[in-house]
Amino acid sequence: MNSPTCYCNGELIPYSASSVPLNDLGLQRGYGIFDFLRITENVPLFWEDHLDRFYHSAAEMLLPMLQTRDQLKSIIKELIRINQLPFSGIKIVLTGGASPDGYTIGSPNLFIIQQSIAPPPAAIFLPGYKLFTYPYQRQLPEVKTTDYLMAIRLQPWLKEQGGDDILYQQNEMVSECPRSNFFIVTQNNTLVTPGRNILKGITRKQLFTIASSAGIEVEERDICIQDIENAKEAFITSSTKRIIPVTQVDTKRFEPFSAGSVTDSLFNAFCEWEKAAIQNHF
Amino acid sequence: MNSPTCYCNGELIPYSASSVPLNDLGLQRGYGIFDFLRITENVPLFWEDHLDRFYHSAAEMLLPMLQTRDQLKSIIKELIRINQLPFSGIKIVLTGGASPDGYTIGSPNLFIIQQSIAPPPAAIFLPGYKLFTYPYQRQLPEVKTTDYLMAIRLQPWLKEQGGDDILYQQNEMVSECPRSNFFIVTQNNTLVTPGRNILKGITRKQLFTIASSAGIEVEERDICIQDIENAKEAFITSSTKRIIPVTQVDTKRFEPFSAGSVTDSLFNAFCEWEKAAIQNHF
Repeated sequence: MNSPTCYCNGELIPYSASSVPLNDLGLQRGYGIFDFLRITENVPLFWEDHLDRFYHSAAEMLLPMLQTRDQLKSIIKELIRINQLPFSGIKIVLTGGASPDGYTIGSPNLFIIQQSIAPPPAAIFLPGYKLFTYPYQRQLPEVKTTDYLMAIRLQPWLKEQGGDDILYQQNEMVSECPRSNFFIVTQNNTLVTPGRNILKGITRKQLFTIASSAGIEVEERDICIQDIENAKEAFITSSTKRIIPVTQVDTKRFEPFSAGSVTDSLFNAFCEWEKAAIQNHF
Repeated sequence: MNSPTCYCNGELIPYSASSVPLNDLGLQRGYGIFDFLRITENVPLFWEDHLDRFYHSAAEMLLPMLQTRDQLKSIIKELIRINQLPFSGIKIVLTGGASPDGYTIGSPNLFIIQQSIAPPPAAIFLPGYKLFTYPYQRQLPEVKTTDYLMAIRLQPWLKEQGGDDILYQQNEMVSECPRSNFFIVTQNNTLVTPGRNILKGITRKQLFTIASSAGIEVEERDICIQDIENAKEAFITSSTKRIIPVTQVDTKRFEPFSAGSVTDSLFNAFCEWEKAAIQNHF
């Protein structure tokens, strides 16, 4: 298989040949941010939102971003044109760069990588996900840093539990999964999702608009374990997974996913919304 | 200036020419550990302790370490022989490596880098350091991960305060500086240093033995802000800095460093201890 072309500090080169100098602060001090866009039918979905978040992350980490938004868009378009990977993901990574003392932010390194991913299924992913809670709060939660220490370290633990993903909690309040946002549907059909101490996902943001037009009330507020006990439905959202029903959180089991549920109607509405976004892109 | 030779996944190459593939988990997910030894007169000081900690960090992060301890020692000796940097630092870095899915631990990348550093001064560093506390607890504190997100991000803040280093605290309990351990000397000349939620430094460990032989009592216990208010002296320890007197923590000011103080006698004893370690190495 050919290696896709990536952007590596101003050059377009094969991903398999790309590298970063050992003195990079992203490598030696874990100092970096990124964002990840899903490409569907060669369209970078919701890229304005992803770029907003990317520039926000860079600013929060005091990383100077030399490229303008238009320049980033041109590079993304060029990669899409060259690589012809209509179903893929594009990852934009910005690191602290080469540092004179290995500690002070240097001249940042920018990488843009495109890689094939399976197209998201047309139907909702069943049987859904089992989540297991773990006591942890991400540092700088509203910044999309490259820090996935805990998530990766917990993978064998998650497997032992027989779970599909981790749900972070602290003091009985849940926040997010390592790479997705968490929602519950209350008995009176209100959508609830944490509003703080999380990374605010782009699918999460789109869903607020979709729910709103569907007449579903959305509340951003803390969710405690008892709220999950009392909930009717739960699901997670992410750019790659869209919406996945949650069947279990620790010992709490939800009814199996059913047609006509709130999760179902939101999933269908999201797919329509995505189609419209693709059509409007051109 | 010639670039020192480094060890990069089995090869000895110039540091300036060394690099890591973009798909490395250390770069993309901040998943890595390291250790850092000071080389003085071509001796890797307290390397048994550093290697103990390095293998401990690797195990805690579930990173398979293919090289034996003897192999690591041989590489370190070889770098010392080739580079002839009698006063330097050696950094051993192990990352998650190339990951098939960008999330699962791959085949780790190992780098060993030697770089010149200024020899530590013969006399104690004066006027000492001003520390400013910041509310933060490092994740996986007993593991020497590459996660320095907060420390680096806070550098401009530290400068604004007019401080020399950050002292992390949480709920009024202080823990450590980003790259050094914190000690106080109580009014009755007891040495106190936090015993949990910190990275246990090698200089800190050596100092326990030194203090003990000098008849100075050492307590490992939580230190609250009030303990600092009440303390007679304070200092920090690190492999590169040995012992540096602390003159200020937030608004609390200590008496200027004086000959005959506990800090002074520990510094002198540490320098003797180090000399002996150098002589015994050969």
